[in-house]
Amino acid sequence: MAILCRPAIAVPEHVLTLEETLRLARTTHADHPQLALALRLIENTGVRTRHIVRPIEETLAHPGFEERNRIYEAEAKRRVPPVVYRALDQAGLTVRDIDLIVYVSCTGFMMPSLTAWLINTLGFRPETRQLPIAQLGCAAGGAAINRAHDFCRAYPGTNALIVACEFCSLCYQPTDLGVGQLLSNGLFGDAVASAVVRGRGGSGVRLERNGSHLVPDTEDWISYAVRATGFHFQLDKRVPTTMKMLAPALRTLATEHEWDVSGLDFHIVHAGGPRILDDLCHFLDVPPEMFRFSRATLTERGNIASCVVFDALERLFAAGGVPEGARGQIAGFGPGITAEMALGSWVTGERPAVAGQTRGSTHRAGVA
Amino acid sequence: MAILCRPAIAVPEHVLTLEETLRLARTTHADHPQLALALRLIENTGVRTRHIVRPIEETLAHPGFEERNRIYEAEAKRRVPPVVYRALDQAGLTVRDIDLIVYVSCTGFMMPSLTAWLINTLGFRPETRQLPIAQLGCAAGGAAINRAHDFCRAYPGTNALIVACEFCSLCYQPTDLGVGQLLSNGLFGDAVASAVVRGRGGSGVRLERNGSHLVPDTEDWISYAVRATGFHFQLDKRVPTTMKMLAPALRTLATEHEWDVSGLDFHIVHAGGPRILDDLCHFLDVPPEMFRFSRATLTERGNIASCVVFDALERLFAAGGVPEGARGQIAGFGPGITAEMALGSWVTGERPAVAGQTRGSTHRAGVA
Repeated sequence: MAILCRPAIAVPEHVLTLEETLRLARTTHADHPQLALALRLIENTGVRTRHIVRPIEETLAHPGFEERNRIYEAEAKRRVPPVVYRALDQAGLTVRDIDLIVYVSCTGFMMPSLTAWLINTLGFRPETRQLPIAQLGCAAGGAAINRAHDFCRAYPGTNALIVACEFCSLCYQPTDLGVGQLLSNGLFGDAVASAVVRGRGGSGVRLERNGSHLVPDTEDWISYAVRATGFHFQLDKRVPTTMKMLAPALRTLATEHEWDVSGLDFHIVHAGGPRILDDLCHFLDVPPEMFRFSRATLTERGNIASCVVFDALERLFAAGGVPEGARGQIAGFGPGITAEMALGSWVTGERPAVAGQTRGSTHRAGVA
Repeated sequence: MAILCRPAIAVPEHVLTLEETLRLARTTHADHPQLALALRLIENTGVRTRHIVRPIEETLAHPGFEERNRIYEAEAKRRVPPVVYRALDQAGLTVRDIDLIVYVSCTGFMMPSLTAWLINTLGFRPETRQLPIAQLGCAAGGAAINRAHDFCRAYPGTNALIVACEFCSLCYQPTDLGVGQLLSNGLFGDAVASAVVRGRGGSGVRLERNGSHLVPDTEDWISYAVRATGFHFQLDKRVPTTMKMLAPALRTLATEHEWDVSGLDFHIVHAGGPRILDDLCHFLDVPPEMFRFSRATLTERGNIASCVVFDALERLFAAGGVPEGARGQIAGFGPGITAEMALGSWVTGERPAVAGQTRGSTHRAGVA
């Protein structure tokens, strides 16, 4: 029984408001033939504020891919440890209790990944499994939950730590002038998130089933062009319509679990943009209120990629959660077009009296 | 019970011999103050031939990171499908039987990863899980086996497909002139590999236990510098000594499984260089003959990164395997410094009469 515990989130100190974003778009792209469209699309996102790791002046000046990756690494090393400690504390565990670290991030590239540094620096055990994922984009939040769930299911009693680190502002490309890219410049924000999946005990979402769905022949709808200047985000204008194609997959997974997706008690989904949430209401026959946590994330922080599902879930915890046994879904959406979906029930367990007491049961993990 | 079935490997048609490598090093670096050392190090690798995706003249001319990635994608799409089909055939399965694709590659970057294209193009089911890993380097071969094992353990009866795609020649950096880099230019080769981990039935290595080990504070011993020109491989001169630090982890894992590592019947390990194999003989008290498959991979194909363990394992199959029940280990080593280790026994199962007959049992996968 794997429990997804309360996530910890941090956003950077540099704040960018919608007004500032619109002003920057107007001045930077004064001569752009589709400026009016871009401004309207940005306003329609509903994003009011975003947080970015560097001051806006620095963010707008592309210092080169090498320097961007240097900044990524330095900012990750500075901002990730506090959320990891908080997530562990909220789960009632310590670094020594963790058997797997799933690290998801698509906005910077390091080899070895940050997992090695985390193990060395924060004191995780040397035998901690490392699972770094860089290529699932915004779907990686859901994928991280699902792979952590799988691991705890394979080895009962083990614990997995998820870390999502997304500095989307470090992928800003001043030379990209398509309307999709102008929109993206007004949509994405930075954040770091962490959450523990406990193999035994804990409070939160008891993970019961997970699934993945790839919409056929949409590989090039969301993609990176990988260039000397780094990762260039490419967004097809058909992307906002994808919920029509993914909603049936969400419904099917719930049905396989003998649940009715329209009757679920909570929905924590990737808020890539407002259309995603509006369309899910429609196609899943769910009132808009059910997506209030995801919408709040979008409004206050923008699309923070793989961190969205953790930020939205944290808001559910902060609101007091849902009644014991309440049923819900968590879903990340991203390039592929891929959905990574999970179904679970709310449990209010006991926090263990002593952190670390779950260890004994895992010593024999690995015997098939 | 997860069975790692016979891998399929393919190497490109362009062959580079040791003599050619030495001649190129002499002419390209005629004035290098440490040329003699570099030549000696290259000769000492024992690498006789390597295979590369492009003719040597093209390989030596860096066309830019964007073009390199374009070549990576085109070559991957050309070379991966045949090994996937062969691996599936050898496992007695079809694309429709696969529940998870683990794709490992550290020598090119795509988002979405090749998994999306494979699902769309080869006809895998849309619900196939995608697990792309780009940041575990040469250890990723072992990691792919271990994460596939975990998945089949979590969902009995499911099947995982592993794909390893390494075009190391596309990371050649003509401006990198350190001795470690000159050595690397004479060490790495290109290959693609695929293997199925069957949840039920099949012949090969029954995976029984896996583990990971990170050598403390060695993060910067093997790393990429990520620059406008792409991934720059950086090798610390202490790397060849790492088996002294990893051999105890291999021994410990075997002991936890109540096996004696010195008495195992087969050893399939990453052949990063000759010193790794020599040192493992010493520290594990195992005769050199036990590493003959890994050594043959190194000699004939060079260090083919995450593909090494699959190439060496394929050689074990080609040699007729080992007796039923024989015990062995598989281990990948890479940046971190990380070892991804697996223990298993040889089984000669029946191939299913009809491909696809394993499907029914997996329909309910996902219920914890």
